Amino acid sequence: MTPEEFRQAGYAVVDWIADYWATLPQRPVTSQDPPGTLAAGLPAGPPERGESVEAVLADLDKLIAPGLTHWQHPGFFGYFPANTSGPSVLGDLVSAGLGVQGMLWATGPACTELETVLLDWLAQALDLPEKFRSAGPGGGVIQDSASSATLVATLVALHRAAGGRWREVGVEGRYRVYASTEAHSSIEKAARIAGLGRDGVRLIEVDPQSRAMSVPALRAAIEADRAAGVVPALVVATVGTTSTTAIDPLPQIGPVCAEYGVFLHVDAAYAGAAAICPELRFGHAGLEYADSYCFDPHKWLLTGFDCDAFWVADAGELVEALTVLPEYLRNAATESGAVIDYRDWQVPLGRRFRALKLWFVLRWYGVEGLREHIRRGVTLAARFADRVRADDRFELVAPHPYGLVCFRLRGPDEANEQLLAAVSGTRRVLLTHTRVTGRHTLRLAVGAPQSTEVHVDEAWDIISGAAAGLVPPG
Amino acid sequence: MTPEEFRQAGYAVVDWIADYWATLPQRPVTSQDPPGTLAAGLPAGPPERGESVEAVLADLDKLIAPGLTHWQHPGFFGYFPANTSGPSVLGDLVSAGLGVQGMLWATGPACTELETVLLDWLAQALDLPEKFRSAGPGGGVIQDSASSATLVATLVALHRAAGGRWREVGVEGRYRVYASTEAHSSIEKAARIAGLGRDGVRLIEVDPQSRAMSVPALRAAIEADRAAGVVPALVVATVGTTSTTAIDPLPQIGPVCAEYGVFLHVDAAYAGAAAICPELRFGHAGLEYADSYCFDPHKWLLTGFDCDAFWVADAGELVEALTVLPEYLRNAATESGAVIDYRDWQVPLGRRFRALKLWFVLRWYGVEGLREHIRRGVTLAARFADRVRADDRFELVAPHPYGLVCFRLRGPDEANEQLLAAVSGTRRVLLTHTRVTGRHTLRLAVGAPQSTEVHVDEAWDIISGAAAGLVPPG
Repeated sequence: MTPEEFRQAGYAVVDWIADYWATLPQRPVTSQDPPGTLAAGLPAGPPERGESVEAVLADLDKLIAPGLTHWQHPGFFGYFPANTSGPSVLGDLVSAGLGVQGMLWATGPACTELETVLLDWLAQALDLPEKFRSAGPGGGVIQDSASSATLVATLVALHRAAGGRWREVGVEGRYRVYASTEAHSSIEKAARIAGLGRDGVRLIEVDPQSRAMSVPALRAAIEADRAAGVVPALVVATVGTTSTTAIDPLPQIGPVCAEYGVFLHVDAAYAGAAAICPELRFGHAGLEYADSYCFDPHKWLLTGFDCDAFWVADAGELVEALTVLPEYLRNAATESGAVIDYRDWQVPLGRRFRALKLWFVLRWYGVEGLREHIRRGVTLAARFADRVRADDRFELVAPHPYGLVCFRLRGPDEANEQLLAAVSGTRRVLLTHTRVTGRHTLRLAVGAPQSTEVHVDEAWDIISGAAAGLVPPG
Repeated sequence: MTPEEFRQAGYAVVDWIADYWATLPQRPVTSQDPPGTLAAGLPAGPPERGESVEAVLADLDKLIAPGLTHWQHPGFFGYFPANTSGPSVLGDLVSAGLGVQGMLWATGPACTELETVLLDWLAQALDLPEKFRSAGPGGGVIQDSASSATLVATLVALHRAAGGRWREVGVEGRYRVYASTEAHSSIEKAARIAGLGRDGVRLIEVDPQSRAMSVPALRAAIEADRAAGVVPALVVATVGTTSTTAIDPLPQIGPVCAEYGVFLHVDAAYAGAAAICPELRFGHAGLEYADSYCFDPHKWLLTGFDCDAFWVADAGELVEALTVLPEYLRNAATESGAVIDYRDWQVPLGRRFRALKLWFVLRWYGVEGLREHIRRGVTLAARFADRVRADDRFELVAPHPYGLVCFRLRGPDEANEQLLAAVSGTRRVLLTHTRVTGRHTLRLAVGAPQSTEVHVDEAWDIISGAAAGLVPPG
């Protein structure tokens, strides 16, 4: 494809996306196609000869779009949001066009340096502790996801816990990772990948009300493990758990980690973005104790997946844990010690120029624009929670400090399952569920860029209406 | 940013990329800016208020482009190519615009199904063994890179070697991974991440001529380990090593793995793409023995990073090794067993709609168009090798079955280092280096979409000219 062919086809694809966004509110938020529908609609093999971009765009409309869950739809309130935005898409487009491979500083100097600077900008915007800025021994990097950040933190923690021997001998003896029972499944997955198995993770009980990690229970677990010859390697504290956005108490967890020399990683995948607003920084109290920290601009900060921002206080330790330097990657810049080679900060070797999308987003919206976006989400969630609170048939199951509201019908789990099914069946609104103290609970997470009061109110109307048949009038 | 604002800004970014590609040949292939140049040119913090896309594009020209290594430049012959192309960029653009999160089938049915079908298409185009097609127990998935594919293969191999106990107890006892001394550094990195340490990897000697793994040495290593109570878990065989594109002998390695029950992963990251041409499938002889296989469309198949195509013969085993299912991800489709949830096929939870770029590429070029691209690279490499062969000052260091030519000045390493520095200094051509049997060797890898005879000839003229001052006339 020549540059001129790309120009013409590029306009057409830009138009397709603009039209897609403009028509999103009219589309059903989910597909009703049964499994296998798209697969059955595609040819059995690739075309032998080339086709036009128009033909592909036509199939995008005919075959792909009807089979999607529309994450940017104003009625999408499932999971956590996975925001994107125009400037993010444009930054990603530039990245794709440049086709730069940023594994080493030498293979993309500007790719590396923009990332370092942007992570400093973000740290400043969120008012993260100074130790995470690149001016000192710390610094930031973009990972694909919080799962990978947790994995990297686990590896550095093992490196430290084994006194540096881990690189050579691997997992020898027994190590333990601690997180609350409400923590994300990626912690167990990271421990499994790192060779600790499920037994290498100890899930610490939470306070029944706040759903936050019990610090006495954490201390007791660490002490019991030490007494049994198990080395406590890592505590993962969560700011904004997946089920209910509970906040583990860093000001109390931090000193325990310091006392026992345990690496502390703070996972604020969803809620960290809120800290761009000064009044929403409460979750970060005690963050100065953390050895590493991450949040996902790709969740709630208008930056498309994949963009997890991960910081460490000691980049040297991280590089020591992960680096392998074969001859074919040696170069003068690396050997000068004056540059960052981000391949040593992550699992894969290769890396895209992901800082561009963050740059486009920060410059288009400015910090003030991003604050507005977060505040709108919090306000919309509060508006929805007010509706729930005002209806005796329902109960709020947890506080809603951010953009997530957890609620349920007062009544059996079955009624709540039926409610979720009925709401989903309208295909106007997507909600997901969780369990809180064993009870089936509905989650409404605000954050899609197009969601407004209209859509939150529509969601409530649908939920409220669907509930009418399931419980006696309140 | 409204859809209409996106439309206008989108056209401008498409123009920027088309102009960038059109002007690439006139740009220096590398930057001469010292470390810190870009960082010093950027503001100390993010803007408080939003700016225009035009302002960002102006800075892209002023600040970013001069600080890049241009991987799509016709004079880029370093490392392995990291191709992209117009249709790939457009597919990625659609993916960014949709902003779909494909972690589960339910969160993006079409995202999941297109990927399954496209990996079947690719398997067909490369004539991979039937067992990797999704019709049976096997199937394919897109990983970000071959590094991650190797890691996943390592984890499944451990799961199998430990008789399924690995999920629960982690690495207990000693396991070994085998690869040749020429294999990629990602194998050591994967073993380290998996908790095996460097001691968990045994690098098997290669034949001095072919640089391919010695099968008797592999067998001896496996037997010695078994005798010492170490469990042989994984052999990683390489088709097209990074240094010289050597090909490990699968027809002999396969039976050894079968005999000792060792998982066999085949890493064809670079060279696998060549198998789209029937006459270039020689590297895949014996592939029917493999438990898993990967190659990178993002290296040599005109598909932008990140797109590693990874297949397993037994997807059930893979999912068993990696799955963790928290309540908030449970859904009816998953429980039906009728769908693929690709989150269980990879390290991270989240995933982009990467099949789209592959779809755009396969449809725009057709299989014939991709074959032409590969053949052009092989022909250009042969053309360059002919120049080297015809000049007595130089020697070819290894065969060049694909698009990579390894060569050196007959003479000391220092002369070759000086040659590389002189060539790099022109900033017209980028070459990298390696060591072959201990000797400093230059690598010229053809593959950038814009590279033609003109650029390969220019590379030779520059190299030949620079050599004039370094060795006596031949």
